Amino acid sequence: MNQENSHNLLKGKKGLIFGALDDRSIAWRVAIACKREGADFTLTNAPIALRFGALDKLSEETGAEVIPCDVTDYDQVKELIEAAKKQHGGLDFILHAVGMSPNIRKKNDYTSINYRLMQQTLEISAISLHRVLQACVEKEALNDGASVVALSYIGAQRVFSKYSDMNDAKALLESIARNFGSRLADKEIRVNTISQGPTKTSAGSGIKGFDAMYDFAELLAPLGNPSADECADYCITLFSDLTRKVTMQNLFHDGGFSTNGISEQLIYELAELNKSKES
Amino acid sequence: MNQENSHNLLKGKKGLIFGALDDRSIAWRVAIACKREGADFTLTNAPIALRFGALDKLSEETGAEVIPCDVTDYDQVKELIEAAKKQHGGLDFILHAVGMSPNIRKKNDYTSINYRLMQQTLEISAISLHRVLQACVEKEALNDGASVVALSYIGAQRVFSKYSDMNDAKALLESIARNFGSRLADKEIRVNTISQGPTKTSAGSGIKGFDAMYDFAELLAPLGNPSADECADYCITLFSDLTRKVTMQNLFHDGGFSTNGISEQLIYELAELNKSKES
Amino acid sequence: MNQENSHNLLKGKKGLIFGALDDRSIAWRVAIACKREGADFTLTNAPIALRFGALDKLSEETGAEVIPCDVTDYDQVKELIEAAKKQHGGLDFILHAVGMSPNIRKKNDYTSINYRLMQQTLEISAISLHRVLQACVEKEALNDGASVVALSYIGAQRVFSKYSDMNDAKALLESIARNFGSRLADKEIRVNTISQGPTKTSAGSGIKGFDAMYDFAELLAPLGNPSADECADYCITLFSDLTRKVTMQNLFHDGGFSTNGISEQLIYELAELNKSKES
Amino acid sequence: MNQENSHNLLKGKKGLIFGALDDRSIAWRVAIACKREGADFTLTNAPIALRFGALDKLSEETGAEVIPCDVTDYDQVKELIEAAKKQHGGLDFILHAVGMSPNIRKKNDYTSINYRLMQQTLEISAISLHRVLQACVEKEALNDGASVVALSYIGAQRVFSKYSDMNDAKALLESIARNFGSRLADKEIRVNTISQGPTKTSAGSGIKGFDAMYDFAELLAPLGNPSADECADYCITLFSDLTRKVTMQNLFHDGGFSTNGISEQLIYELAELNKSKES
Repeated sequence: MNQENSHNLLKGKKGLIFGALDDRSIAWRVAIACKREGADFTLTNAPIALRFGALDKLSEETGAEVIPCDVTDYDQVKELIEAAKKQHGGLDFILHAVGMSPNIRKKNDYTSINYRLMQQTLEISAISLHRVLQACVEKEALNDGASVVALSYIGAQRVFSKYSDMNDAKALLESIARNFGSRLADKEIRVNTISQGPTKTSAGSGIKGFDAMYDFAELLAPLGNPSADECADYCITLFSDLTRKVTMQNLFHDGGFSTNGISEQLIYELAELNKSKES
Repeated sequence: MNQENSHNLLKGKKGLIFGALDDRSIAWRVAIACKREGADFTLTNAPIALRFGALDKLSEETGAEVIPCDVTDYDQVKELIEAAKKQHGGLDFILHAVGMSPNIRKKNDYTSINYRLMQQTLEISAISLHRVLQACVEKEALNDGASVVALSYIGAQRVFSKYSDMNDAKALLESIARNFGSRLADKEIRVNTISQGPTKTSAGSGIKGFDAMYDFAELLAPLGNPSADECADYCITLFSDLTRKVTMQNLFHDGGFSTNGISEQLIYELAELNKSKES
Repeated sequence: MNQENSHNLLKGKKGLIFGALDDRSIAWRVAIACKREGADFTLTNAPIALRFGALDKLSEETGAEVIPCDVTDYDQVKELIEAAKKQHGGLDFILHAVGMSPNIRKKNDYTSINYRLMQQTLEISAISLHRVLQACVEKEALNDGASVVALSYIGAQRVFSKYSDMNDAKALLESIARNFGSRLADKEIRVNTISQGPTKTSAGSGIKGFDAMYDFAELLAPLGNPSADECADYCITLFSDLTRKVTMQNLFHDGGFSTNGISEQLIYELAELNKSKES
Repeated sequence: MNQENSHNLLKGKKGLIFGALDDRSIAWRVAIACKREGADFTLTNAPIALRFGALDKLSEETGAEVIPCDVTDYDQVKELIEAAKKQHGGLDFILHAVGMSPNIRKKNDYTSINYRLMQQTLEISAISLHRVLQACVEKEALNDGASVVALSYIGAQRVFSKYSDMNDAKALLESIARNFGSRLADKEIRVNTISQGPTKTSAGSGIKGFDAMYDFAELLAPLGNPSADECADYCITLFSDLTRKVTMQNLFHDGGFSTNGISEQLIYELAELNKSKES
């Protein structure tokens, strides 16, 4: 592992990382960055993701143990947390990068949704964070001053039609982060969400219309869309001891997309479009 | 019915009102105000609420039919919407004033929540809005230009500890309103939430610590807490044709609580408190 | 004046309306709507606007007196408020629809701005609201329960490049509304801003790139852009007694633009654009 | 200088720090932290602040040159930027920690404000950021990938009555940061504001009612108020290369104050207060 760019920001810290699938995953890049910064951690994902993904390779590269866990099953979550605690003697950081909508997979329109599947969307993508944190409380697994980060998306604030019930799931996720954050503060623990711009991961590519969301954000965000590696670096700052009073926040890591109303490039493109229509 | 204060804002409009229980309910006051403004409507609530509430009295006063409906059961919701459509020939407005947390009732702490009950909280308080609107789409029950309002609370943005998983439910509710709103716009239909300040209703009183939330808001809101009748009047403006381009918004009806950082009165009270501690 | 559509929402109310120029102005449409709803009011605008505008016609139509006032001169503002108070015996509502950027007129780029002109932008477009309200306090001109509305734009939250220092002016305006609102609450007075979508007025047309802002908003807002008349109707609801507990808010009247992330139509247009590039 | 805790996050970076007065100043603590992380920088403050402050001591400790500058005078700002550029060959980061309200000093109430002084408040506390960045553009002083941070306060979003026209100034400051940020993105430059919780600095203590604001925030923020040193560490993360896609954001560094609605401790204190009133 290349240690050249390390700042030793996580030296001695122990963590748990949810959601790495392959080397394009944000969670994968976070794991690499955490290693670079001196942390040890456990990796976890759903059993089916472990079968189809390449987590063994990441495990090898980082020396991290892999523990399968279905985050919709509280017993499995408790076992995972217990195992991670046993391994590390207490956790200093957690990355929650978990999200999936069966309604999107089944191409159910938002106005003719399947409610059992919507519940799964919420269970997998949002309530899972509650389960993980509740298990941490029950097992006393988080060290004082620990930092929890969950990955979110601006769909929590604005409607991205193709993102369907994942918009709702992210709104719920951010609320859970906020609410649980207020309960863990007595141990100086922080809980935040990063609202990451569209990222070309295997998960992202699964969403119909993802390309349009990506291209539009790329046009509108003054700095362009953030990469998975850039997101990983941002996570590092939040796991580090340099951000000890940041909690219950949703932090946009989006190249300025969220606060840019219109861009010169977009104005130009729309004008081009009008011209091409007229001609 | 006293028509003196009527502005005929809803003359000829047909509606459906969820959640009236007794004469302190916001939904009850909305029904009274809708009648005053010239609307006809159907009333609905859960079967158990109908047993314990006093909806018959409201039905008599307003000439509205009462149809029981468990909003967590999509079949019942569809039947309700079909019946309401049949009765009125199409709906011009809907009030969703539905919310309940079994976790709060069972006094489960947020960090040792029961997940089956959390799901019920979300089903009753948030996903029910989706069910109602999806049924409206399926049954083509909403007239062009209709207006849908759901009641929310600032717990969707900030943590009110005693409000437990209802904070999460309200965040989800507001997201669903926003997302469904974007889908109904092609028929000029609006969907908004009103974030009402704490109101002394039977439902509110069921929440432990409600009095503290109420008193704190009363101290901090420059205009004080809004009454159920004031909320009803605000709903009327949103159901009327004077607000045809307001959609996908969460509108604070809270006497200024949400944007007031600290009040002179609160400064004074905290100073008093410090004095009383010192003496 | 056609009274057919009147709801008598402002019967007996007295007001003061800033910023009407010609019959496309939002303030002009508000004046017409206020008359329809039974209000009497005074009209005002800058001396130069009175020369070039058509306010006499509006005065005739509505029976309103016109008083010229340079809102950057506190003495003139005090005289205006005193005259309006004398005429009406106390004001029940005020519309502030004032905004102008000399930097935009001079085509100064935001990164090579003229600071004296920026001060003028802020004085005219934002601090003028403070002056008006401070004069009202000094002259005891506002009746209990009065309602003040200032027109704003989403540039206060997001960057619209062509809107230059007006983005900053609107952020300041909304802050002043909020802050003054908290001071007037003891007399039950409300102060709010309406964040109106792009509107084809003479003022709007003065901004280079306005068409692009308009077209983009029209594409993205699910209900499309709101007209000046629709804005006027919304103002009526805020001036009426049906919104007595809404204060210190910024209220989006924008067809859903502010909470829509991307629209199907925009996705389609961008795809078309990509196709036309490839071919 | 103790280098023990250094992460070398700013190794080789050059900066400019506005607003250090004495060793309680946030800017002072930022300077110390920047030094620790390997940066070189120039210090600046108003001539009068230099006379009354202790900046020579900081200059000695950090090896930084001190250049006086009245930020309301564009010529002085340009000279400063030119000198800083000359010294460092280009700037990688800027801290703007400048704010002062003559109206607060003169104890002018917000509803009987002096408009000349309000303009000074805005010039010093907000427009100064525009001047600094415009001078940087004119002098080509910012290196690619530079990071600009300005210190703000939640008064920009909510009313803190004693903070008077500084609430407005902070709203304007955040807008300017956002707007200028969009213009500098083509050079990969970021501009953000940190919304710092109340901090016991010499500047803070100058505000009447500061103690009440501090105590209230301490009661409500789950992690308590952040110290100046903690703010400095947070600044370091934003100056570093780990946050390259964060721009045009207002970032709350407030122990969770902004998203906490009510705290258990506040509920308890208010209950105590009610008891003491009854007895």
